Amino acid sequence: MNHASVTSLINRRTLLRQWSAGALGLMFVSGKLPSAFAADESRLLVHSKAPMNAEPSLPDLVRWWVTPVESFFIRSHGNTPEINADSFRLSVEGLVESPLMLSLAELGRLEQHAVTATLTCAGNRRSEHSRIKPVKGVQWREGAIGNAKWRGARLSDLLKKAGVRESAKHVWFEGLDAVDDGGKTFAFGGSIPLEKALLDRESSPGALLATTMNDKPLTADHGFPLRMVVPGYIGARSVKWLSKIVVSDRPSPNHFVADVYKLVDEGTLLEVAESGPIYRMPLNSAICTPTAGAALKPGRVEVTGYALPPGVPGVSIRKVEVSADSGRSWTEAKLTSMTSEFCWQLWSAEISVNSTTKELIVRAIDSRGEAQPEVVRWNAKGYLFNAWHHVPVN
Amino acid sequence: MNHASVTSLINRRTLLRQWSAGALGLMFVSGKLPSAFAADESRLLVHSKAPMNAEPSLPDLVRWWVTPVESFFIRSHGNTPEINADSFRLSVEGLVESPLMLSLAELGRLEQHAVTATLTCAGNRRSEHSRIKPVKGVQWREGAIGNAKWRGARLSDLLKKAGVRESAKHVWFEGLDAVDDGGKTFAFGGSIPLEKALLDRESSPGALLATTMNDKPLTADHGFPLRMVVPGYIGARSVKWLSKIVVSDRPSPNHFVADVYKLVDEGTLLEVAESGPIYRMPLNSAICTPTAGAALKPGRVEVTGYALPPGVPGVSIRKVEVSADSGRSWTEAKLTSMTSEFCWQLWSAEISVNSTTKELIVRAIDSRGEAQPEVVRWNAKGYLFNAWHHVPVN
Repeated sequence: MNHASVTSLINRRTLLRQWSAGALGLMFVSGKLPSAFAADESRLLVHSKAPMNAEPSLPDLVRWWVTPVESFFIRSHGNTPEINADSFRLSVEGLVESPLMLSLAELGRLEQHAVTATLTCAGNRRSEHSRIKPVKGVQWREGAIGNAKWRGARLSDLLKKAGVRESAKHVWFEGLDAVDDGGKTFAFGGSIPLEKALLDRESSPGALLATTMNDKPLTADHGFPLRMVVPGYIGARSVKWLSKIVVSDRPSPNHFVADVYKLVDEGTLLEVAESGPIYRMPLNSAICTPTAGAALKPGRVEVTGYALPPGVPGVSIRKVEVSADSGRSWTEAKLTSMTSEFCWQLWSAEISVNSTTKELIVRAIDSRGEAQPEVVRWNAKGYLFNAWHHVPVN
Repeated sequence: MNHASVTSLINRRTLLRQWSAGALGLMFVSGKLPSAFAADESRLLVHSKAPMNAEPSLPDLVRWWVTPVESFFIRSHGNTPEINADSFRLSVEGLVESPLMLSLAELGRLEQHAVTATLTCAGNRRSEHSRIKPVKGVQWREGAIGNAKWRGARLSDLLKKAGVRESAKHVWFEGLDAVDDGGKTFAFGGSIPLEKALLDRESSPGALLATTMNDKPLTADHGFPLRMVVPGYIGARSVKWLSKIVVSDRPSPNHFVADVYKLVDEGTLLEVAESGPIYRMPLNSAICTPTAGAALKPGRVEVTGYALPPGVPGVSIRKVEVSADSGRSWTEAKLTSMTSEFCWQLWSAEISVNSTTKELIVRAIDSRGEAQPEVVRWNAKGYLFNAWHHVPVN
């Protein structure tokens, strides 16, 4: 490090302290953002407005491989902050040689990459868990999933710029939202292993600092002006309103890493302490048309839906199968979209139904030959429901 | 903290630094220990001598509910240190109000508790994994398990004496052995959540600082003069030759917590980083007599074995079932030992065999109604194999 960069480092650190101490309030503008930034509720089923949690209808969801922003599920844990893009700064700190404090313009000068990636909530299909035994939390149907084109700098490039120290193992993310939980108010946080952050290949970055979604600036609900996008991982790791990155030797102690997003039987404190954070999304699939309760005429019926690969680098969807006779026989679906490791796969199948058909079922098989499980173990927080999807029909 | 304890604290810290820096060598006596301390290899199948890894034959194993030391499996990762009990000290450090440095005599002045608990290696039954696809590591049969009566101070009492700070979440253990791995030499280490360390009930401590095994001093192979015993957890957390306890806000960075004892599909660095450490042992069972390849006469045959509850507080074995017709019909076994949450359950069943009988199968059901799985997912490190146990017979 030369003299100039040492001075610059000191200045950055001074700035950082000042910013951490009191600048947060300055970053919220007092007026409302234009209405184009608000969720288009006419196209979403709103589970709650504060925080905003909403999902599209299933037929709407699979109309496009790249989900329009208006049909993209929204998962928030606190308020939707209104952020002034001009005064916004991203700080990079922790186990780095040079802590950084970057404006959006400075981030924009890093090499920009576009990547199409599917995000899905760890609680997608929670309502199906709740049919086994009620689970608290947003009762997501099968629509807490969407596929978008994101653009921005690679996290790995930013980390290279900051210089990651040898002892680094995890990267923490923190948003500018304010979550109320257990009598405390704090920012939502996520964390990913450094290995994931650095997993860059031509087609797919480990993680992207996204400023656009489908070629437009992020909307407020989707994290304006900056969000992480971590392909293959549960949506909770793709932190919205991203303002702080901390490089560390361990996962973030943020409540949403240390306690919340974990697979536990009963949810005792001991179990939570014994369980690691969830990262990858599981192999999954759902029927989107026809919808539950549809009246089908005997004969050939078109069934459509999505399938999701398991968040493992290089693993995609190999096959989707649909059954109209409770799993006795299966019809292979036609894959109707691009096949990509961290994107959903749309599919359609023509299947014969008759007067005895009570339900349609779908299951997916990945490129390793692993099949989606017929049933899943109930868990206290209702995460990663990925059993075969059943749709009752008449 | 008063003046006296501050002085005492400083002295302890000074001692601790001196001890950490150079005293390790002093703690090993130069002569050999009496032969009574060595493994009785005549009763054990020795997989390797350096490090010592050995297991009993299955018929020997289930002769007693409390396993004799001579029939107790030995799992070591490095040398078997020979430790001078007089100069031995246990240090307690990290997030505590008063770091401690205790002799065995001082540990003996803490309230002493006896507890019977089963230890089992996370790799028990690994050879069955290897039949699906070879896995590296000690090729354990079904004998890397044993049940013993341990005596010593409760870890929770020691932690109360040291005064655990509010930010504490995990407790690290470190032995006096020297493990060679990846070009480095270091002590074996374990780690448990603080919740587990403090989980004390009348019948069962969260974790015990054991100095005796079946009412005799620990043998060198089993950790003389001091080992952790963590009921319900994989044996790797019951660190032998225990010399250091560190209270921390996170799991130990020791290789055997951070990297080794994890469930991973392929074992890539990314997968290892995405996976939390294994703590609990899983619900399991094995047939110990007759043994594989036994020639059975048609008629009634006595089958015996063990079953292991799943390491969840309050959960024990409810039922053990044996099949002689490849799982078409099941005979309920008689539970022949005490039933206890963190101890194995011995059982015996009388079952009819005929000329078509090709194998015997056992499966266990726990007190929550959960059944041992018919098959398990192969994993790259060969841990937690707990599928139904099949024994081919003639």
